[in-house]
Amino acid sequence: MKLKVIVTLKNGVLDPQGKAIQQTLNGMNFSEVKEVRQGKYFDIEINTNDENKAKDKVEEMCKKLLANLVIEDYKIL
Amino acid sequence: MKLKVIVTLKNGVLDPQGKAIQQTLNGMNFSEVKEVRQGKYFDIEINTNDENKAKDKVEEMCKKLLANLVIEDYKIL
Repeated sequence: MKLKVIVTLKNGVLDPQGKAIQQTLNGMNFSEVKEVRQGKYFDIEINTNDENKAKDKVEEMCKKLLANLVIEDYKIL
Repeated sequence: MKLKVIVTLKNGVLDPQGKAIQQTLNGMNFSEVKEVRQGKYFDIEINTNDENKAKDKVEEMCKKLLANLVIEDYKIL
């Protein structure tokens, strides 16, 4: 089965990449854009049909590799 | 209001970064991981309360800046 994971910076952590995108958009006549924050997205295909087991595994992957829990949060969809 | 955008590589486009993550996970005893594909995620805060207008604007941003439509797809959540 396939699981989706979104990793985002925690609130309060500076996001210079998102800021750069926001300023670029403002300069392209999208003046209504107030803030952009960028994150990462992962599509993970995992060899099991047990949804709970798959979610547990993916959560472990997030903690060990995909997210830096000091500055990032993750969400499994 | 806040909109979320996911930008992913189209099917068939090679994703060496996702492949590297998959191999790393396999080497960390997550042998059940069959494929990983990485994408980008954006949280966009936009100065309007009209949801349709906001979506139209964000779609325009995706086409002009956030996604490379030759190799990427976008989804507005």
